[in-house]
Amino acid sequence: MAGGRGTRFWPLSRAERPKHLLSIAGERSIIQQTVDRISSYIAKEDIYVVTVATHAEALAAQLPGIPRANIIVEPVGRNTAPCIGLAALYLKRRNPDETMVVLPADHLITDEGQFVETLSAADEMARRTPSLITIGITPTRAETGYGYVERGKGEGTAGGREIFRVGAFREKPDLETAQRFLQQGGFYWNSGMFVWTVATILEEIEGLMPDLSEALDEMDAVIGTGEEVARIADIYAGVTPISIDYGVMERSRRVLLIEGTFGWSDIGSWDALWEVLDKDGDDNAVTGDHIAVQSSRNLVHSSGKLVTLVGVSDIIVVESEDSILVCKRGSSQDVKEAVEILETRKMDDYL
Amino acid sequence: MAGGRGTRFWPLSRAERPKHLLSIAGERSIIQQTVDRISSYIAKEDIYVVTVATHAEALAAQLPGIPRANIIVEPVGRNTAPCIGLAALYLKRRNPDETMVVLPADHLITDEGQFVETLSAADEMARRTPSLITIGITPTRAETGYGYVERGKGEGTAGGREIFRVGAFREKPDLETAQRFLQQGGFYWNSGMFVWTVATILEEIEGLMPDLSEALDEMDAVIGTGEEVARIADIYAGVTPISIDYGVMERSRRVLLIEGTFGWSDIGSWDALWEVLDKDGDDNAVTGDHIAVQSSRNLVHSSGKLVTLVGVSDIIVVESEDSILVCKRGSSQDVKEAVEILETRKMDDYL
Repeated sequence: MAGGRGTRFWPLSRAERPKHLLSIAGERSIIQQTVDRISSYIAKEDIYVVTVATHAEALAAQLPGIPRANIIVEPVGRNTAPCIGLAALYLKRRNPDETMVVLPADHLITDEGQFVETLSAADEMARRTPSLITIGITPTRAETGYGYVERGKGEGTAGGREIFRVGAFREKPDLETAQRFLQQGGFYWNSGMFVWTVATILEEIEGLMPDLSEALDEMDAVIGTGEEVARIADIYAGVTPISIDYGVMERSRRVLLIEGTFGWSDIGSWDALWEVLDKDGDDNAVTGDHIAVQSSRNLVHSSGKLVTLVGVSDIIVVESEDSILVCKRGSSQDVKEAVEILETRKMDDYL
Repeated sequence: MAGGRGTRFWPLSRAERPKHLLSIAGERSIIQQTVDRISSYIAKEDIYVVTVATHAEALAAQLPGIPRANIIVEPVGRNTAPCIGLAALYLKRRNPDETMVVLPADHLITDEGQFVETLSAADEMARRTPSLITIGITPTRAETGYGYVERGKGEGTAGGREIFRVGAFREKPDLETAQRFLQQGGFYWNSGMFVWTVATILEEIEGLMPDLSEALDEMDAVIGTGEEVARIADIYAGVTPISIDYGVMERSRRVLLIEGTFGWSDIGSWDALWEVLDKDGDDNAVTGDHIAVQSSRNLVHSSGKLVTLVGVSDIIVVESEDSILVCKRGSSQDVKEAVEILETRKMDDYL
């Protein structure tokens, strides 16, 4: 799933250049890293990307190994349930009994071996028992920015890993609740990564989201015909935007949980990026040429100019082709406000 | 006097582009402003600029009204006494009894009317009584970064202004001393601006700095000949570098003081520049396009890119053609350290 626009990574992320296309955490872009880390486990011709029309070309250019036909264009953003449903229609044509792994394009994962092992175990479970498996990340801090999944009773093992039922899905908690979750154990970050067979997810959508299911049937009928693009655009636009969590996961009786113990971040902001990047001896995380004098705990991302820090701490400095952002660490959520000001002033060149 | 290199305004100031050639405090460069503010009082053809060979072309381009012959090239830097002596040789040819006003090229003055009135009064005194008049700035804070001049007894009036003898020159004081100077009154910042006749300063150099005087005589003999450039380069290189303060002012018995009550700054650093610049409602001093979200007391100088501040206070952000400086306010003296690192690493393109 490579939909989002990612204004929070402005000025690098732009309307035409979302977060997952950026090289903000290494030389490869985020989506290239996402594809790289599953390539040992899933063949390139079996990887599909759902994106929007404006990003499709740039995305295809970044992922030369993935067949052009596997890049599915979502006509408009309608949240994750329609996106996953649309993708499932194309996968169904390959093999409805095959496992479908759903991954956001813009997450960072540290331990790729652990990650693939987790997918493999979930795959085994999904084939054995028709189920919707969510990957719950073992929390490492009392994070209030994520939703949580509470573990239920054990449901056996697969690939040597324990699989659990889901006790409950929890909204983003307040700090006190998040601290309790962390202390108590058995609560996981809801990563938005899922494993199921194509047939199972389509069955569950049919049972729990009949309107979406009907729209998917209509779209299914035109795939491969000359009407495909126009009709899907038309039908998709009429679909209600609902997340897969709300539409299916929180209501299905076939939901299971597997623990993810690989290092994980949804890198939702410059602040979150600093947390996961490699740092120098002064805890500066730097991409590009720089000089630092008595400066620590900064994030620097240069796009060409030499960035020199003198006596500054806890600052985010980002240079893009036409902009420079200087932001206090801890305030990067407010970058959205700057983007809103640009929108209000119709400074579209910067958006 | 337009000599210095000004590494403290890096990355805008460069070896080839010293502070006085920069437009850091308005649309006109510092030296253009220096010339502008005396233009109502001194005709352009009577304004001379002493500079170094590498800056002469850029300087001439910025000051089209000043005759090319009035741009005097100092072969090497030898501090202010030789510089002033050299200039006096050229002025002597025009009229040795005329008043000579010595101004550093890189100061900022707020009240130009007051400034010209001060020059005019000093001019009157210098013509009436052979004297070396220093302009002492009435201090507005307990500044430890400047030398001070202590006022002596009154020496009458000129142009309706009181003129004083000088009690003593004081080195840069510690904070306690500076506070006492401010409280006690009668102490002035040593601005490095002087008024005297050409004949008087040459006489005083002759009496107090015989070695320099001898060198000046040798240079005087070749001015206007085919040997002028080569011989002056040769002689000037052998001159001892001494400031006019140390060489003449602190030892002459003909030194007088006039008060300067116009707003004045030698803008010796980015911090000093912030103090004197116009600021918006959040005390941000900004040159170039910018957006500020919850940000205050910053200095921004953009050379083209949009600078966006989010949640930052007391930060200096400067963009040049190839560099971005992000510096804590109060630490701008340490910009020199960054320049030293560039020198050590032989990153000459940035110098």
